Amino acid sequence: MNKIISLDEISGALVCEAGCILETLDNYVKEQNLIMPLDLGAKGSCHIGGNVSTNAGGLRLLRYGNLHGSLMGVEAVKADGTVVDCIRTLKKDNTGYHLKHLFIGSEGTLGIVTKVAVHCPVLPKAVTLGFFGVKDFDSVLKLYKSAKASLGEILSAFEMADNDSISSTVQNLKLPNPIADFPFYVLVETHGSDETHDAEKLSRFLEREMSSGLIIDGTVTSEPAKMQDTDKDVEGHVITWFTAAVDMDGNKQGHPCWDTIWNLRESIAGAGLLDGYVYKYDVSIPAARYYDLVPVLRQRMAGKAVKVYGYGHVGDGNIHINVTVPEYSKEATDMLEPFIFEEVSKLKGSISAEHGVGFRKPHFIHYSKDEGAISLMRELKQLMDPNGILNPYKVLPDP
Amino acid sequence: MNKIISLDEISGALVCEAGCILETLDNYVKEQNLIMPLDLGAKGSCHIGGNVSTNAGGLRLLRYGNLHGSLMGVEAVKADGTVVDCIRTLKKDNTGYHLKHLFIGSEGTLGIVTKVAVHCPVLPKAVTLGFFGVKDFDSVLKLYKSAKASLGEILSAFEMADNDSISSTVQNLKLPNPIADFPFYVLVETHGSDETHDAEKLSRFLEREMSSGLIIDGTVTSEPAKMQDTDKDVEGHVITWFTAAVDMDGNKQGHPCWDTIWNLRESIAGAGLLDGYVYKYDVSIPAARYYDLVPVLRQRMAGKAVKVYGYGHVGDGNIHINVTVPEYSKEATDMLEPFIFEEVSKLKGSISAEHGVGFRKPHFIHYSKDEGAISLMRELKQLMDPNGILNPYKVLPDP
Repeated sequence: MNKIISLDEISGALVCEAGCILETLDNYVKEQNLIMPLDLGAKGSCHIGGNVSTNAGGLRLLRYGNLHGSLMGVEAVKADGTVVDCIRTLKKDNTGYHLKHLFIGSEGTLGIVTKVAVHCPVLPKAVTLGFFGVKDFDSVLKLYKSAKASLGEILSAFEMADNDSISSTVQNLKLPNPIADFPFYVLVETHGSDETHDAEKLSRFLEREMSSGLIIDGTVTSEPAKMQDTDKDVEGHVITWFTAAVDMDGNKQGHPCWDTIWNLRESIAGAGLLDGYVYKYDVSIPAARYYDLVPVLRQRMAGKAVKVYGYGHVGDGNIHINVTVPEYSKEATDMLEPFIFEEVSKLKGSISAEHGVGFRKPHFIHYSKDEGAISLMRELKQLMDPNGILNPYKVLPDP
Repeated sequence: MNKIISLDEISGALVCEAGCILETLDNYVKEQNLIMPLDLGAKGSCHIGGNVSTNAGGLRLLRYGNLHGSLMGVEAVKADGTVVDCIRTLKKDNTGYHLKHLFIGSEGTLGIVTKVAVHCPVLPKAVTLGFFGVKDFDSVLKLYKSAKASLGEILSAFEMADNDSISSTVQNLKLPNPIADFPFYVLVETHGSDETHDAEKLSRFLEREMSSGLIIDGTVTSEPAKMQDTDKDVEGHVITWFTAAVDMDGNKQGHPCWDTIWNLRESIAGAGLLDGYVYKYDVSIPAARYYDLVPVLRQRMAGKAVKVYGYGHVGDGNIHINVTVPEYSKEATDMLEPFIFEEVSKLKGSISAEHGVGFRKPHFIHYSKDEGAISLMRELKQLMDPNGILNPYKVLPDP
């Protein structure tokens, strides 16, 4: 089940079996100057079939879109053993129902994905990274709007972390913070086809937003031997330009600054564990209300929680909210759940942005799906797996 | 049914009723520096609900992806009157089955779309256009691969037309051809956020591929007051740079050159009507075999057809094949159908790339869908519309 079947180097269509490891595929398509349209922390071990079944999003979603957009075809086996062959390597195919989407994100409960056809975009020739300090969450949002306008087509990540997220990580893991202490941090990454153009766009964005006051301080890193100066902006703030970070194969490496920034961002999830027990929530909330829940939870958990912090993919509306308590207690759990899901529901958000429903959240699903939708889900499950043999107890709540 | 409900200017999420006209929406979101992710010739009259129900692709698909990727949510009414409310303005939502995709492209046979939530990308600040002559189809494919690598994230259209397509249009409609007579023509359009960078990328691409010999001659047009020179490339070919074409609102207008090029491309479909009766096929074929069917059909229809020609969206694998005969005859029809569908099927293509199945193609659907898929389609139809009251006689073949 881990065979690569074909790669069309012109269209970028990759066909492979479901058991292929994401990183193996990424390395394979890189030889043809392509990349996989998704990237996850778990890429060294996760299977592409699992990525499809769980509708994995990951780090490149802002730039390359979701799997519903990039999956060209699927082969799946239904509960009765029927093979549904929707493997096609076409971008446009309007011949009947678009069945492949039934298998994307249904967590293996409607059929087992056995083969996939994925559209691989062109490998970016240049990757640049900026890390900025800002004064409040409103500035984060304004900066996102400005980044979309200035960086447009090359914007590949727009991440934010509040002060508690970064300071816990710096303290607990002894990681360096490349800039000073700020209420909020923003990480901006670009993927583009021209190093000079991309660096120009990013530095113009940085200069303009330092002048406007949205960015208080920041650092930008790019590819080797570029931008090694130290400049001052109009208000006399020091802008440090670092070197390098991406080798000839597009791998991040070499210079510590790049790693400093991404490491800091990617270590937040784990760093909290040193403070006690961590309740982790992975929710989506419409942009304007993205950070609303953090102060609400801080107030609710005052005296109970060590820390409440929020960080995540602003560009995707996806925020991770971590609540650290000295140790697990039923009392803390009851204060958090279903309260947090009720609040997300009021904000028209999703109680599970990326991580799915699994067996722990079926009884919370009504916070994100209305009665009509849940009943259609039940009907589909009954139709495609009448004996309930595919991933039982998952996704659907008890009737 | 034509109310715009909300627009989130930060995330770009637009929510509206199904009866809104695509062009009205495009004008509305433009005020916030956004565009609709799809564009069609029929945009002045088509409804967004119909776009969703037919999975409309159109001219911007290469750049902004398909509706499965850009639709954030749908509200639909099932045959039994139940409302399924999947309106969300989130990019990531993994709470249960991704039901909205059942209503995309099922041509109203599984439910009636009543509201949609669509992600609108940022309005491009710069649009550039190139029109090139090349010597054979192999060069078209090589040029596409090269354009993907050079223009990457700004490439918004890569179209081709063979000599018969263009010469019929030039002759029948008395339209000017901005370059000389060539075996194949390629139209390249870019949408980007920086005029100077984009023009630089496109002209570098043009220069390189004129040197390599892939492009024999070409013309590039951009925004007002830019690039008004006439240059010569390394081999002494004249490169003419035209002015203007996009006004402050991003509308194509003013200078005739832009219109000359797009008009020529967009008039191909209608021009053939002056030669007699036109059989039109809208198929998808994997890149490497994209043009294969045209010479096959020329041979088969020799002496019967006035012309057989191919043109279309290379970037989407979507080719339009037109066969012009002096007048309609059953003999010609029988020579073409199902022959052409059989050939498309052998090439693992789609017999209907964009235009859907409707009531004319249900009995041909097996050329693009296998038995397992057709039977799952029937089961879904039976589940969601047991009395067959939604768009009867469409999409599904008789049992």
